[in-house]
Amino acid sequence: MEFSSEEMSRLNNNPFYQALGIVVEEAKGGKARSNLRPVSTFCWPSEGQPHGGVLFTLMDTTMAWAVLTKLEQGANCATINLGIQYTKRAGGDIFTCQAWVTHQATRIIYVRADILDEEGQLVAAGQGTFKAIKAPLSVEKGNRDFSL
Amino acid sequence: MEFSSEEMSRLNNNPFYQALGIVVEEAKGGKARSNLRPVSTFCWPSEGQPHGGVLFTLMDTTMAWAVLTKLEQGANCATINLGIQYTKRAGGDIFTCQAWVTHQATRIIYVRADILDEEGQLVAAGQGTFKAIKAPLSVEKGNRDFSL
Amino acid sequence: MEFSSEEMSRLNNNPFYQALGIVVEEAKGGKARSNLRPVSTFCWPSEGQPHGGVLFTLMDTTMAWAVLTKLEQGANCATINLGIQYTKRAGGDIFTCQAWVTHQATRIIYVRADILDEEGQLVAAGQGTFKAIKAPLSVEKGNRDFSL
Amino acid sequence: MEFSSEEMSRLNNNPFYQALGIVVEEAKGGKARSNLRPVSTFCWPSEGQPHGGVLFTLMDTTMAWAVLTKLEQGANCATINLGIQYTKRAGGDIFTCQAWVTHQATRIIYVRADILDEEGQLVAAGQGTFKAIKAPLSVEKGNRDFSL
Repeated sequence: MEFSSEEMSRLNNNPFYQALGIVVEEAKGGKARSNLRPVSTFCWPSEGQPHGGVLFTLMDTTMAWAVLTKLEQGANCATINLGIQYTKRAGGDIFTCQAWVTHQATRIIYVRADILDEEGQLVAAGQGTFKAIKAPLSVEKGNRDFSL
Repeated sequence: MEFSSEEMSRLNNNPFYQALGIVVEEAKGGKARSNLRPVSTFCWPSEGQPHGGVLFTLMDTTMAWAVLTKLEQGANCATINLGIQYTKRAGGDIFTCQAWVTHQATRIIYVRADILDEEGQLVAAGQGTFKAIKAPLSVEKGNRDFSL
Repeated sequence: MEFSSEEMSRLNNNPFYQALGIVVEEAKGGKARSNLRPVSTFCWPSEGQPHGGVLFTLMDTTMAWAVLTKLEQGANCATINLGIQYTKRAGGDIFTCQAWVTHQATRIIYVRADILDEEGQLVAAGQGTFKAIKAPLSVEKGNRDFSL
Repeated sequence: MEFSSEEMSRLNNNPFYQALGIVVEEAKGGKARSNLRPVSTFCWPSEGQPHGGVLFTLMDTTMAWAVLTKLEQGANCATINLGIQYTKRAGGDIFTCQAWVTHQATRIIYVRADILDEEGQLVAAGQGTFKAIKAPLSVEKGNRDFSL
């Protein structure tokens, strides 16, 4: 499926992404790109460093968007498993995540992602498997059934 | 290292855990147990279901506590990698995470964890590797250098 | 499905397991147990230590048997992903692998496994996801379509 | 460290690689490339398809070579963990594996790898973490202490 920039805005406009500081910038053709502007509450236990769970959430979310671009309208996806590696301390004011589908089987989709800091250094790398599910992706409501 | 119940209370009393609804109940002898009472902001995109990233954060945190119990005073730990599997939809008012160290090498510690729902059903399973690092675990401050 | 001890013998009697030194001892009720008696060709680059790939093969195989016990007659399984951790140097004359299904979804099965040395020490730990597929498990032929 | 083509030949000339059909073609600058010409004994349970454990061994081996190129003379490496995804059935006469280091911390090295079939299609993708260890890499002997 494809997302118009208007849909993207609407989808980004949800309390979850906003609380964490996540914005999905682009999603098409099996790829997605997002960024994170860390919020102080979630920079813990080290000031200025987003918790590993926040980086994971950014990655999982971005992977899900990449996967969604490969699915038909009316489908949705759920994470089966995700392995994340933390390569270096995550400092800075903005992080970028890029996710790309590496293979699409009938109902299982394989994906990789990188999270880079402002200087383009890798702070986390991951690979995951997602399953396609039948569940409406309610852009209208903006508060349920979207991505994972 | 060991944690008194007073230290546990102080450590749990931080804005990050409180925002997500995480409480670490116990940590000793290579094991840790925590729970999550989902907060609505983080139950997204499906109402009543904590985002996979929140479950991951609960798991990563609980693993870190299990690891810390095996380290000397003055040490800390950081996640090298963590693989999480999502086994079923995570519904309900409370989730319990149990983490246990499976092996401790000189500086690398191996750990597993399960997240169960109220009915004792497995909603997520994981395994991770952590490294021991030299970094004070500031119980006093409560806002830096603890767990990951 | 269930396996009689006669079927187990027949299934173990294949050139692949024999080359590597693998014997599956038992498989029932979502669990399987196997052992490995390392063959010198596959103890490389360190004499007396089976290559990590041989331990992985033992684990993947044992997981597949555990999964098969949860499937209907006529089904088979394939590995979607498997994460393995190597916890310590693998020395000794025999290794035991135990695998257990942790959750069975409609078509995706989640499983964990441990490999222990003679002294009962953990040398490798893993978790994997398998998918159920329709493919005959030809016990008769013994040379195709069994496990992964 | 760097490997001359003479060293490469000598290192490839070992019973383990030969039994499995593995040849490491190149290793330099944090990257390594190898190929697998499947041997029938190890194409089991499906004729013509190398067992998943053989593909894993190819990947682990190639990752180790990529890692070694980033280490000093006299060092060696060992796999901490490796997550492998099987994306499609692995058919054909030759498979190519490419591995590349994504990040090198002080003693922990992060790496990814792909295995492609003859048509360039992805059959397996992986990511791993390795640790640098002090252990001679005995090119002279060719039968111990090399890679993992």
